[in-house]
Amino acid sequence: MRVLPVVLTPKKILLIGAGKAAALKARSVLESDCELCIIAREIADDFFVGRRVELKSFELADARGFEALINATGDKRLSQTLWKNRRAYGYLLNCVDEPKFCDFYFTANTRKGDLCVSVSTGGASPSYAQATRDLIAAVIEDGVCRRHEKERKGEVYLIGCGTDGIDNLTIGALKAIKRLEVALIDNLISAEIRDLLPKNCLVINVGKRKNNHLLAQEEINELIVKYARDGKIVGRLKSGDPSIFGRLREEAEFAALNGFTPRVISGVSSAFAACRAAGITPTIRGVSSGALIASAHLRGARFNDDWINLIGKTPYTIIVLMAHSFSAEILKSAKRREVSLQTPCAFTSKIGSIDETVVFGVLSDLESMAARIAKPAVLIIGECAALSYKRL
Amino acid sequence: MRVLPVVLTPKKILLIGAGKAAALKARSVLESDCELCIIAREIADDFFVGRRVELKSFELADARGFEALINATGDKRLSQTLWKNRRAYGYLLNCVDEPKFCDFYFTANTRKGDLCVSVSTGGASPSYAQATRDLIAAVIEDGVCRRHEKERKGEVYLIGCGTDGIDNLTIGALKAIKRLEVALIDNLISAEIRDLLPKNCLVINVGKRKNNHLLAQEEINELIVKYARDGKIVGRLKSGDPSIFGRLREEAEFAALNGFTPRVISGVSSAFAACRAAGITPTIRGVSSGALIASAHLRGARFNDDWINLIGKTPYTIIVLMAHSFSAEILKSAKRREVSLQTPCAFTSKIGSIDETVVFGVLSDLESMAARIAKPAVLIIGECAALSYKRL
Repeated sequence: MRVLPVVLTPKKILLIGAGKAAALKARSVLESDCELCIIAREIADDFFVGRRVELKSFELADARGFEALINATGDKRLSQTLWKNRRAYGYLLNCVDEPKFCDFYFTANTRKGDLCVSVSTGGASPSYAQATRDLIAAVIEDGVCRRHEKERKGEVYLIGCGTDGIDNLTIGALKAIKRLEVALIDNLISAEIRDLLPKNCLVINVGKRKNNHLLAQEEINELIVKYARDGKIVGRLKSGDPSIFGRLREEAEFAALNGFTPRVISGVSSAFAACRAAGITPTIRGVSSGALIASAHLRGARFNDDWINLIGKTPYTIIVLMAHSFSAEILKSAKRREVSLQTPCAFTSKIGSIDETVVFGVLSDLESMAARIAKPAVLIIGECAALSYKRL
Repeated sequence: MRVLPVVLTPKKILLIGAGKAAALKARSVLESDCELCIIAREIADDFFVGRRVELKSFELADARGFEALINATGDKRLSQTLWKNRRAYGYLLNCVDEPKFCDFYFTANTRKGDLCVSVSTGGASPSYAQATRDLIAAVIEDGVCRRHEKERKGEVYLIGCGTDGIDNLTIGALKAIKRLEVALIDNLISAEIRDLLPKNCLVINVGKRKNNHLLAQEEINELIVKYARDGKIVGRLKSGDPSIFGRLREEAEFAALNGFTPRVISGVSSAFAACRAAGITPTIRGVSSGALIASAHLRGARFNDDWINLIGKTPYTIIVLMAHSFSAEILKSAKRREVSLQTPCAFTSKIGSIDETVVFGVLSDLESMAARIAKPAVLIIGECAALSYKRL
């Protein structure tokens, strides 16, 4: 049954019964400004000790003047009587555990400030509704989604969005995204994350493609500050963690120097998401005592192999971002530096998406491995790459 | 005003008016199994084109037989009349934008499967309620919080919880935590995260203190599998990202070999959270082309300095976890290896908490820096440490 959620303005409510079920309903009512009266033959739950309860048998005449009645006695004949007379007396009826005698159900609620969030399964599963309520209570916060007209001061967010999809996003990033009035995104931001942007948010794609920069970094910096000066809440969305090859410093510095203290939000780095996808732990006792995150691609599409000498010569797992286009160069450089071509490695791409791919091999396989996956890809090099817990 | 959220079982509802405001209410009602009739003098919104609308002036007699009435005409005199007669006719009343003539308000709703979540601000700010609804819609998922009795198969989660607090937690981690029946935690898991565990979840502290292991790794592995065998949803909560010095492989391997494919959830690594707290970007074009995450502490409380030779000799920022207890040894080792003691560095601790501390300096200051912060601490070494965007 598809119910209609509403909130009732303060009503005069009569609760019949003073047992455990009644206590649950009473708690819910008392969190509102409704006026609650209680009639019961006896008190059967500690909640009612010290509260005003009229100790008597309920009679229909007692219902007069009330806008809602709750039968928490478990008396089914009473439920029938109350249901039959509800239009004549003009009350809304809730009979605990008897859905067919209910005008309304209670919901699992959480309140923060003015906010009241309620969850219902239309009677299907109260425990499921409560669990969902608890999940929501952890996320909502009074004021996060509110903005008063007076507070028209620009704000700058630099947000790490993780690798793909909502589950890899932090709650802080989600809250920030939901506040944005202007969002600067690039092509690495997934459709799922883009869909989270508020409907009235201005979305600008500043996406950089290699050799085909849509916007120069300086232009991006200027855009952020321009909109912040207009009093907007501006966010730059970055995949992974913004501090790793994310030009974070350029943007943070420019915003700060222009009077907007940037709020930086960490994200799950694609380096670690790649390891998770491959089942590789970059540190393993006795195998690898650290992880180096490097890039095969530096400014101006230049190939970078400053990390290649460390292969086999340090006890670290090397995680190379933007490695795909350079797999031939990486192999060539490894040969030249006499790095062992039997070093285990894994290539991963499209982490977290339906197209997620992981290919395992050794360095000499690099080119054929690259041919089997899409860009951009993360390359994991080192003994740990041979020890995936997904390949046991 | 503190309202009482409820859900109405299917009602016969009369909507008066066929303009924009009426369309909003009609949409909400039509998402439920309520029966909706519409009376209006004329159609003033496209929503009503092709729908059954009785074109006439409303008269009080039309209200007969309806359990709820919505006045979306904007006619204030009509609102007064409807309010006066509501008990006599036995309907609940909602007059759009006239809170004093409302028995109930509509809420901002989102539905997934059986779940219906509604948000209200008690009339204070519908747009705020809608924004909060959108935030919630991104997080809830049908089935996440539900578990049928039939599905009593054990599950194993290995969950990265980020550094501190809820905002640094991923949405995937939150959903997993909310499902747990058994949680294995340690002392690095903050009270805020512990509070997220379901009320009936069994919580076991397996926290390792240096020299005072509460439980050996093998015992932790056994515990995880024991509870999974009992059909429980078991979670091992780890701070930061579980793949970085988190003994992830041991636990994942043991679970997998015992028939429980572990679900690994990435987290925000404390290495990057430390950088964010300090305003340090570990990669900066022309300054640092990578980040090495290492540890000063290896098995058996042994000091590890396999990374110290890289200072000044590679273009990487070095992020050293568990560095606090070893600051004297680090300094000694740096002197012995003739590392420049003028290399910039920053010590950070209690990231994300109210006691968050960041101390800047150069390597020669290491001991006095350590004296000013609490354990555990993250040490960031390299030229980037002198370029904090928080110190402009």
